[in-house]
Amino acid sequence: RHGRVDLSHGGGGKAMAQLVEEMFGAAFDNPLLAQRNDQAVFDAPVGRLAVTTDSYVISPLFFPGGDIGSLAVHGTVNDLAMAGAVPLYLTAGFIIEEGFPLGDLGRIVASMAAAAREAGVSIITGDTKVVERGKGDGVFINTTGIGVTRPGVAPSGDRARPGDAVLVSGFVGDHGVAIMSTRENLSFETAIASDSAALHGLVAAMVEAVPDIHTLRDPTRGGVATTLNEIARQSGVGMVLDERAIPIREEVAAACELLGLDPLHVANEGKLIAICAAGDAVRLLDAMRGHPLGADAAVIGEVIDDDHRFVQLRTAFGGKRIVDWLAGEQLPRIC
Amino acid sequence: RHGRVDLSHGGGGKAMAQLVEEMFGAAFDNPLLAQRNDQAVFDAPVGRLAVTTDSYVISPLFFPGGDIGSLAVHGTVNDLAMAGAVPLYLTAGFIIEEGFPLGDLGRIVASMAAAAREAGVSIITGDTKVVERGKGDGVFINTTGIGVTRPGVAPSGDRARPGDAVLVSGFVGDHGVAIMSTRENLSFETAIASDSAALHGLVAAMVEAVPDIHTLRDPTRGGVATTLNEIARQSGVGMVLDERAIPIREEVAAACELLGLDPLHVANEGKLIAICAAGDAVRLLDAMRGHPLGADAAVIGEVIDDDHRFVQLRTAFGGKRIVDWLAGEQLPRIC
Ligand SMILES: Nc1ncnc2c1ncn2[C@@H]1O[C@H](COP(=O)(O)OP(=O)(O)OP(=O)(O)O)[C@@H](O)[C@H]1O
Ligand SMILES: Nc1ncnc2c1ncn2[C@@H]1O[C@H](COP(=O)(O)OP(=O)(O)OP(=O)(O)O)[C@@H](O)[C@H]1O
Ligand SMILES: [Mg+2]
Ligand SMILES: [Mg+2]
Ligand SMILES: [Mg+2]
Ligand SMILES: [Mg+2]
Ligand SMILES: [Mg+2]
Ligand SMILES: [Mg+2]
Repeated sequence: RHGRVDLSHGGGGKAMAQLVEEMFGAAFDNPLLAQRNDQAVFDAPVGRLAVTTDSYVISPLFFPGGDIGSLAVHGTVNDLAMAGAVPLYLTAGFIIEEGFPLGDLGRIVASMAAAAREAGVSIITGDTKVVERGKGDGVFINTTGIGVTRPGVAPSGDRARPGDAVLVSGFVGDHGVAIMSTRENLSFETAIASDSAALHGLVAAMVEAVPDIHTLRDPTRGGVATTLNEIARQSGVGMVLDERAIPIREEVAAACELLGLDPLHVANEGKLIAICAAGDAVRLLDAMRGHPLGADAAVIGEVIDDDHRFVQLRTAFGGKRIVDWLAGEQLPRIC
Repeated sequence: RHGRVDLSHGGGGKAMAQLVEEMFGAAFDNPLLAQRNDQAVFDAPVGRLAVTTDSYVISPLFFPGGDIGSLAVHGTVNDLAMAGAVPLYLTAGFIIEEGFPLGDLGRIVASMAAAAREAGVSIITGDTKVVERGKGDGVFINTTGIGVTRPGVAPSGDRARPGDAVLVSGFVGDHGVAIMSTRENLSFETAIASDSAALHGLVAAMVEAVPDIHTLRDPTRGGVATTLNEIARQSGVGMVLDERAIPIREEVAAACELLGLDPLHVANEGKLIAICAAGDAVRLLDAMRGHPLGADAAVIGEVIDDDHRFVQLRTAFGGKRIVDWLAGEQLPRIC
């Protein structure tokens, strides 16, 4: 545990087998992973499956509120939760740079295992590759998630309808600002931690209250603005948001001001956007506020008929502006 | 198509959405991917599922016999096939280095799409991340595969029994030697191409002839030697191989001699090891030889009782030696 990863740890031979046994196998231990075949085999759950994949390349690897290990669990669990699905299984693919400290790898793996345990998912199969120094950046992790959807629950990006209410589950922009605060070339400090969290418990409460949620999506890279534009495009609708209704922490607003960023373009890793029929909005909001991860939920706008599929913002000063997709590279390597 | 990947292509905003639409979406097109939600949702197949994941970090990205795109399909399809499963779906996670030529990315994506089409699998969801120049190496691809097993077919690494026959589906070491031949610091040339291929068709023929195949595994990193040692350990058995029976091309043997490598430690990407009851061996061999990808199949040894779990080789000269796990790093970045 005091050494470093070398190329033999990815060579497919004895050193790799030992790393898989003693580090990954020990931390992720469960009966499916213990099969130690080229694949995990299990009975298909009854129903419709949701499958999602994400690679995590965040820099730095450890940040206020989490690390790449917990993020790689939360992010993928959340993409399953956005289908209204119950997350069941994860796969874990590691690409490690030669020279990476085994101690740091151990911390990441422990954090990943803890996040999976807390979310009730098992890491059932994995892969370990090592690339030469200078050909990677510490650790990249891919997680693919498999979950099972609930009967009668089918949120989708193309189901937003004029008149629907648009809700957000809490404060916007925390993750991106927390990551920026750790970057050495950015000269500000904040007490903001990433909001990184698994949202399937919140979603369970939400679909119990309102099974017919039209759309669920987590506003990660590109932020709330991009996510709403994606939905507007998929559904062929417009939206009007109320700026004063969007929960943004003072420190986040201040940091964004300093950096010339729009908090609506900043990434989140523990928030969701929900869209439902206007008549369901109060019930859904109550369900969200009744869950710790939705305590600061708010209705932030409504869906309208608009052939241009514009997302508009009614500003605090009574004006109106277009909220566009994220353009350019704003914040690389935030997830 | 003449430009290069920049950080905005991984930023989650407009440039990424366009890349996903015009390159990935166009090449991989299918109804599940076209849902364009955070996940793909589909009816669970009836039966037992096989799930596997691999990241591909091969260098160089294009090599005789394939490229990282086709390899990322074949490798994962094969890990499903080794469960006797029918491959159904793949996910695709790209980690691209800033500055990578869009033209090369297009070739890789086209090759991946073609390999998936040929193997009869759909790429149902994906992810695109871009890392700064010098923090990656061109392109890394993770594919996760989902397949459904056949009733009564359950090969596993722990099912090899004393007396069983050990078979290989063809010439050993082609992939590793083909990759080495492309590396600039290695001063030899061969006409050997990678054996990269999807083996599920071969396996279908095999399990039709012998449903009760005890073990299937593809000898990738670490080669045949490591794969047999893994199986010996899992099953708690030993093995004795007959050197003269193992199919090795002359050019591969010569290249290995030059490089001081044991061909049994060299990686394959289109070969499999099969273990079955002695009484089934002839039927299985016939079935393998009847398939184009098993034309050069051979029985190469047998499983024995051995508390030490040694894999031994009866050499061409009548001696005996231990065939050990790959130790050290031999051939980095071969898959
Ligand atoms: N990081 C990891 N976490 C958990 N399990 C892992 C990890 N890496 C490998 N494994 C497990 O170790 C075993 C061997 O993995 P390995 O990658 O060698 O198999 P393979 O994919 O068939 O070979 P290759 O990667 O060479 O194609 C598998 O059971 C796999 O699930
Ligand atoms: N390389 C790719 N190949 C095929 N489809 C892709 C690829 N990259 C992204 N997609 C698809 O594009 C859509 C958006 O992907 P995106 O990664 O932005 O979603 P997300 O995972 O929810 O967000 P994030 O990655 O920020 O967590 C998804 O439907 C995804 O399947
Ligand atoms: Mg995601
Ligand atoms: Mg998402
Ligand atoms: Mg693997
Ligand atoms: Mg593999
Ligand atoms: Mg394999
Ligand atoms: Mg993604």
